[in-house]
Amino acid sequence: MLSPSQKSAKNEFNRVALVGKFQADGIEGHLIDLAQMLSDLGCEVFIETATATHLNLSSHPSKSPAEFAGSIDLVVVLGGDGTMLGIGRQLAGSKVPLVGINMGRLGYMTDIPIQDVKEVLPKIIGGEYEADSRTLLDAIVLRGAQIINRALALNDVVVNRSGTSGMVELAVRVNGSFMYNQRSDGLIVSTPTGSTAYALSAGGPILHPRVAGILLAPIAPHSLSNRPIVLPEDAVTSIEVVDGREVIVNFDMQSQTELQSGDKIEVRQSEKSITLLHPRGHSDYKTLREKLHWNEYPSTF
Amino acid sequence: MLSPSQKSAKNEFNRVALVGKFQADGIEGHLIDLAQMLSDLGCEVFIETATATHLNLSSHPSKSPAEFAGSIDLVVVLGGDGTMLGIGRQLAGSKVPLVGINMGRLGYMTDIPIQDVKEVLPKIIGGEYEADSRTLLDAIVLRGAQIINRALALNDVVVNRSGTSGMVELAVRVNGSFMYNQRSDGLIVSTPTGSTAYALSAGGPILHPRVAGILLAPIAPHSLSNRPIVLPEDAVTSIEVVDGREVIVNFDMQSQTELQSGDKIEVRQSEKSITLLHPRGHSDYKTLREKLHWNEYPSTF
Amino acid sequence: MLSPSQKSAKNEFNRVALVGKFQADGIEGHLIDLAQMLSDLGCEVFIETATATHLNLSSHPSKSPAEFAGSIDLVVVLGGDGTMLGIGRQLAGSKVPLVGINMGRLGYMTDIPIQDVKEVLPKIIGGEYEADSRTLLDAIVLRGAQIINRALALNDVVVNRSGTSGMVELAVRVNGSFMYNQRSDGLIVSTPTGSTAYALSAGGPILHPRVAGILLAPIAPHSLSNRPIVLPEDAVTSIEVVDGREVIVNFDMQSQTELQSGDKIEVRQSEKSITLLHPRGHSDYKTLREKLHWNEYPSTF
Amino acid sequence: MLSPSQKSAKNEFNRVALVGKFQADGIEGHLIDLAQMLSDLGCEVFIETATATHLNLSSHPSKSPAEFAGSIDLVVVLGGDGTMLGIGRQLAGSKVPLVGINMGRLGYMTDIPIQDVKEVLPKIIGGEYEADSRTLLDAIVLRGAQIINRALALNDVVVNRSGTSGMVELAVRVNGSFMYNQRSDGLIVSTPTGSTAYALSAGGPILHPRVAGILLAPIAPHSLSNRPIVLPEDAVTSIEVVDGREVIVNFDMQSQTELQSGDKIEVRQSEKSITLLHPRGHSDYKTLREKLHWNEYPSTF
Repeated sequence: MLSPSQKSAKNEFNRVALVGKFQADGIEGHLIDLAQMLSDLGCEVFIETATATHLNLSSHPSKSPAEFAGSIDLVVVLGGDGTMLGIGRQLAGSKVPLVGINMGRLGYMTDIPIQDVKEVLPKIIGGEYEADSRTLLDAIVLRGAQIINRALALNDVVVNRSGTSGMVELAVRVNGSFMYNQRSDGLIVSTPTGSTAYALSAGGPILHPRVAGILLAPIAPHSLSNRPIVLPEDAVTSIEVVDGREVIVNFDMQSQTELQSGDKIEVRQSEKSITLLHPRGHSDYKTLREKLHWNEYPSTF
Repeated sequence: MLSPSQKSAKNEFNRVALVGKFQADGIEGHLIDLAQMLSDLGCEVFIETATATHLNLSSHPSKSPAEFAGSIDLVVVLGGDGTMLGIGRQLAGSKVPLVGINMGRLGYMTDIPIQDVKEVLPKIIGGEYEADSRTLLDAIVLRGAQIINRALALNDVVVNRSGTSGMVELAVRVNGSFMYNQRSDGLIVSTPTGSTAYALSAGGPILHPRVAGILLAPIAPHSLSNRPIVLPEDAVTSIEVVDGREVIVNFDMQSQTELQSGDKIEVRQSEKSITLLHPRGHSDYKTLREKLHWNEYPSTF
Repeated sequence: MLSPSQKSAKNEFNRVALVGKFQADGIEGHLIDLAQMLSDLGCEVFIETATATHLNLSSHPSKSPAEFAGSIDLVVVLGGDGTMLGIGRQLAGSKVPLVGINMGRLGYMTDIPIQDVKEVLPKIIGGEYEADSRTLLDAIVLRGAQIINRALALNDVVVNRSGTSGMVELAVRVNGSFMYNQRSDGLIVSTPTGSTAYALSAGGPILHPRVAGILLAPIAPHSLSNRPIVLPEDAVTSIEVVDGREVIVNFDMQSQTELQSGDKIEVRQSEKSITLLHPRGHSDYKTLREKLHWNEYPSTF
Repeated sequence: MLSPSQKSAKNEFNRVALVGKFQADGIEGHLIDLAQMLSDLGCEVFIETATATHLNLSSHPSKSPAEFAGSIDLVVVLGGDGTMLGIGRQLAGSKVPLVGINMGRLGYMTDIPIQDVKEVLPKIIGGEYEADSRTLLDAIVLRGAQIINRALALNDVVVNRSGTSGMVELAVRVNGSFMYNQRSDGLIVSTPTGSTAYALSAGGPILHPRVAGILLAPIAPHSLSNRPIVLPEDAVTSIEVVDGREVIVNFDMQSQTELQSGDKIEVRQSEKSITLLHPRGHSDYKTLREKLHWNEYPSTF
């Protein structure tokens, strides 16, 4: 067994926080194993406060995401892409990188299967990894001249109708130029990260994480020619609610604002980003192939 | 000028009710002109009660749609497809045919432009027309063994999520056979008539009005292979809400029921139908061409 | 062991022909096993001539598909949907039903896995099955007034451009009514059976086999609003080549004709059909679920 | 009237070449008018050689595109996007900007209507314009280790099957990472410029011209989850023909190579680009709105 100093000598990341999808059955044991493994590697281990509280984990000190910047070197997330989304938004701009581990179901961001952790995590802790920077969107909601909400989104900013109303009509402008009046169920403004989430269901293309662009994908647009469009990263998209009852804007489906006619949402790329770390040799295409069944064919004809 | 007996001698339809989109500006004059023209043709003219009330039209007797069966031979609708939808649902099974007139914007069902009325309407009244029968859907909403709502739909029965919730999960069975568990924004069960409405925006195909089939079109389905499917006319589709907050089912967007997990909607083709009358030589394809811009090309390459 | 008379007493089908995908490795053994099983059930077994010739099978008498009508009670097909397509087209109108067995890869029409044959085939032979009638298309190719080709299609009639030319322009008429001039890579006219084949790749909907309709699905149409359309079963679709070099029409991708500008293809539902037999409890939806991965979800968000 | 020196004093562009779609009826008069207007503005006017030859225009000296670099300051193109495509590919890397004028039918690149020329062209010649740089693709075709063709594309590099063969199977790698084996009618590798051409028909998204990305859009892919994907501008896409008879690769549909199994096409962003000039206030969104009918709605429901 190595002495602490020896261990940290070879580690790139020393102070590691663990975040878990605490609603998942049996996650407790996995988190304790992970904490032990990280301790054995010489890391100082913290459990994210909400994870620790919900799972009643007191073996290691806890720390809230707001405290991570400057005091944590790496965040290890155990769960699905939703868990990563939740913590990722909070760490935007903190410069603390994240590693995502899944418990059997491959995620786009939680790409390391739990059974590979023993082989893979020591290498990442030791500095062998591929860094993957993800952009966020910064959105403000304007009522007249007043900003009534502001939020970041790692996946998407979605304006959509309620379940009981008909279509919403939105006037969309980009960098001040009028693009279109769109009647639809709503409009998704998505990062490359979000392009494999809701926007994909709405018919949008996949954007590689390194594409410097912002995706606009209409949801069930009335005009059949209303295709998804990819805008440059400096695009400021303004979405005005022209007509529609009970229109809502949400940010990563994690927070939302009810809108009135005349309200505007302005969306631009945030100056903040997050960094995911993957094992060396990581392939986004492999994840796409597996998740989207690209390797199989539905029929022979 | 012909005497009343002469006129009615050559008319197939004698008692005619007028229905108008009473919210539309300037519709009053058009309705009065239409009433006059029909009187001149020897018809007995009635104004539908709501139309008469809202527009303060007292020149002719009024009658409510519930009274049309047996006492009205033809309904002339002035407005858009929405107006036709509203009155059509009420006349299902009544055997009273409908003629649709638009005020400049071509409708799928309101296919006669107001300026063509003088030429076209006398012929239809005289028996020169093409009849076009449209099926309806009959839906019941079940909570346990109890039917909590029942409604007809000329366009569609739509189960969808609310604006504030995430996806809905629906279990779909057809004639008792399990089809799929679908995670999506919702599911549209549509008649051929409804195939050019919301289902088209959601990516569904067009069904010719005479196709004996029922269309299921998912809205932004999570599984990318979840294509629209056309079922035979005897299909009974059962949609169970497996998961989802604030799920709603609506019928032609004109009435709706809030659903709970476990609720089921059973949709089948109604025994009732409605009949639209078109001028001789009417072409559904012409309407499609004009409304969908099939005659123009977006680019040359 | 039962005596032949006893066996045939309980069989609905006595004279059975075997057809195999003779290019497939190891199919010989499976065919010999099948022939033995059918003999043991009391059936008189024949091997389809091409299958027998290619695989050098002389254990049983051989018969060509043209001889099946009247002399064969059931055809057992071992292979994939392509094999079924080939033999199915030849048996259209013969009233000889077909059973499809796959060797590991589920087919829409070859739905019985080889390992289930021992349990399932005796029941079908004995009369326990579900019959599934499939329509075919009947197409003629006209150059001026002259019919230059005529063919049946179980899946589809496809008009498409060659690889070296640009778009093709087609004028499409239905029952004499002009539908549209379409510029595209081509147009697919498909049966419900064909709706899960090429038309599905081109963006078409799925048609349940019992839907009485014909599907038109454009391939990469220039006009973005050019959606697939389902026509009634009595629709006669005329496709005229307006413009395009090296345009080709094919029938189930099994035969084809090179077209010139001005040539017309007329497609209507054939009076002939084929009948597939499935085990009791067969579900088309189960096949769709498995082949299209409807049971799985690409991501969590 | 200004003296030549005065005129050229205020011009940014002095030596102007005219290129016309010489197949178009009546283009001769427009070209002569344009030449006169440019002369009046003090420009030295040349007619592109092929244009001059086909239209028998000898009023001005002619020059071939290969001679433009260094001797021409601006190219004025009269025709459609196809004409612009043809000349644009030849001028890649030449640093000579282009202006596109259409004769009634708005183009994405030929955005100035002929009737606006008198107002707009003097301003552009005088230096009032918006520059719009367009990337090109650089493709090589490899047979074993040998490069058998190399070409630039302003719109797209398209690998597709012939009209008589079935699907093609392609193995796609990006920067050496395996992406997928795709069975389809073909694959489009497109610039943002090409995203509104063939890729749009195949279901691809629109890419704003300033997006630094390369679009891959499958044509009628067998796997339903095979969505278009946008790659970063430094992506090198390798497409290997795994299977398929008569497979062809074309470059802007202007040149092509027949492929064999095992052949590879490597596509990367070219170091060369072209520059389009637009009038001040030009809006790509306005062009999209008009060409794609975004301003109109197909139905009311």
